[in-house]
Amino acid sequence: MTERQEHSKGGVYSVPGQAFERDSRYITTRITKDGADGYAVEAGRYRLVAARACPWANRTLIVRRLLGLEDAISVGLPGPTHDADSWTFDLDEGGLDPVLGIHRLKDAYLARDPHYSKGITVPAIVDTRDGAVVTNDFAQITLDFSTEWTDFHRDGAPDLYPAHLREEMDALMRYIYTEINNGVYRCGFAGSQEAYASAYYRLFDALDTVSERLETRRFLMGESITEADVRLFTTLVRFDAVYHGHFKTNRSKLSEMPVLWAYARDLFQTPGFGDTVDFQQIKSHYYEVHRDINPSGIVPLGPDPAVWLTAHGRETMGGRPFGDGTPPGPVKPGEEVTPDGRADA
Amino acid sequence: MTERQEHSKGGVYSVPGQAFERDSRYITTRITKDGADGYAVEAGRYRLVAARACPWANRTLIVRRLLGLEDAISVGLPGPTHDADSWTFDLDEGGLDPVLGIHRLKDAYLARDPHYSKGITVPAIVDTRDGAVVTNDFAQITLDFSTEWTDFHRDGAPDLYPAHLREEMDALMRYIYTEINNGVYRCGFAGSQEAYASAYYRLFDALDTVSERLETRRFLMGESITEADVRLFTTLVRFDAVYHGHFKTNRSKLSEMPVLWAYARDLFQTPGFGDTVDFQQIKSHYYEVHRDINPSGIVPLGPDPAVWLTAHGRETMGGRPFGDGTPPGPVKPGEEVTPDGRADA
Repeated sequence: MTERQEHSKGGVYSVPGQAFERDSRYITTRITKDGADGYAVEAGRYRLVAARACPWANRTLIVRRLLGLEDAISVGLPGPTHDADSWTFDLDEGGLDPVLGIHRLKDAYLARDPHYSKGITVPAIVDTRDGAVVTNDFAQITLDFSTEWTDFHRDGAPDLYPAHLREEMDALMRYIYTEINNGVYRCGFAGSQEAYASAYYRLFDALDTVSERLETRRFLMGESITEADVRLFTTLVRFDAVYHGHFKTNRSKLSEMPVLWAYARDLFQTPGFGDTVDFQQIKSHYYEVHRDINPSGIVPLGPDPAVWLTAHGRETMGGRPFGDGTPPGPVKPGEEVTPDGRADA
Repeated sequence: MTERQEHSKGGVYSVPGQAFERDSRYITTRITKDGADGYAVEAGRYRLVAARACPWANRTLIVRRLLGLEDAISVGLPGPTHDADSWTFDLDEGGLDPVLGIHRLKDAYLARDPHYSKGITVPAIVDTRDGAVVTNDFAQITLDFSTEWTDFHRDGAPDLYPAHLREEMDALMRYIYTEINNGVYRCGFAGSQEAYASAYYRLFDALDTVSERLETRRFLMGESITEADVRLFTTLVRFDAVYHGHFKTNRSKLSEMPVLWAYARDLFQTPGFGDTVDFQQIKSHYYEVHRDINPSGIVPLGPDPAVWLTAHGRETMGGRPFGDGTPPGPVKPGEEVTPDGRADA
């Protein structure tokens, strides 16, 4: 997902003098066991469209990997840049998604509603039967992967949304969303110095808060990885590569915040996290698409992402990253991050 | 000094597809002991106009302090931001330089030449007799402070341009100018991804080269501070505050380059260096003036400059920072950096 304006208004993100607000009108149809919305879970029927560049889409790629849903739900990967009209499948041969047979993701939205006028966002799940978007409600998609797709989880899949933790997790994830995931955008697209300053202090207050929480817990909810960690990770992994400079979130780099930096590397080095991250696509996306804040479209060469592979020391805190489960196996052939985008590029 | 376009062309710095080139047509009249160009050294006659924001002007403020020329050469300080027309004395009461009696520095250039069409740059030295600019040749001004103004140096003034080192210094300072001082601008105003990439590698190669030199020498020319250090310092002190994000010189922050970071703090904490630096003015200048690369004009809040005051450890290398001389005394009353701009702000 990216904000509506990125797609439908050609890069107009912020209004001078105003604070950034994210459009949150999504297609909230759900794919469930009981098929109450008309879409039942079914292996091979749905295609997840998720650009690696996008933090909201990155969530779905991680959770799909952690739960082992690769064979049940295929994935389409739009390129990192797009015009005002739509994300496009420019990385695929002939610019065509091989399953959906479309060049532009917009066509799947129009298949759902010929008069669709909201954001052409990722992640989106498309029904391969009619090529129409079922949902782009990024906040619900990964939770449904955990709770509705259980019949297709791999052996050893972790419980990323444990029933007894949900109340606390929901509050924490809401906080991470408003203060951190969206908080970086609020800095970058502030329409005034005052809006920026307010956003900056609010973001770093929140980062300090989660950092303090992580001083004594290996993961946000304790000894095991949950959906909350996935949601925090996708912002942290983009922090030094993009947000620090492009969005002016520069009180410090992530690598200068010891607890969060160790925590983020711990996750990055866990199967299912770093192996979904393409730093080159991430940088291309933000710096090339957001011409209103980077008119030249020039993409910075630094910093070297190899630091993500350095020792973090968090394993000495103990914990059971996958709870009663096990780490996922190797990345599915054909879904590997290209060499240029890897931390060891 | 800033590039010509900053003043005369309203912020057009780079040409798409092209590398950045600095206009170097200066007024090269010199103020000398023998007055060969019509301007003899004379206490109280000349006024140095030098915005704290500008790295080229910052050199003159440092050298003037180190040599104790404050009483011989008065200083006028334009504010950090300016329009396409001219630097202005907006920090002074009524927006008027109290000695020159002008609002715009441009008027002093026009007093020199009514048809003057090149850059309205700082530093500039103005003859108070007729209010006309004598020189804006920033590379020569500080050398002349060292060699032509000797009769007015303070007791204990260091020799910043020792005769026996000049050949080596001239080559080194040329390298620092083309590769580092100007190198950061070449990154920031590159007109294409290729020009940027070339500029980025060239800059960091040079930073690595001077870093290596400084591993075994406390200062660039050995055990004592020289003009070469002044010239490297003014770029380094702006690196994390501005260049790293605004100019995309982001292989790393200065604070992540151990030798250069220690060296830069050593100088910063030496009387005559850090006490001329106004971080708030520096950030305002670059981020508010360069609307072509920062359309919003929003000035980042980070990073905290207090790190400039931390221990650097370079004193264990020994050396005699002022050679046979002594450090300068306190800043002249009325010339202090305002509290908001200080490292401990």
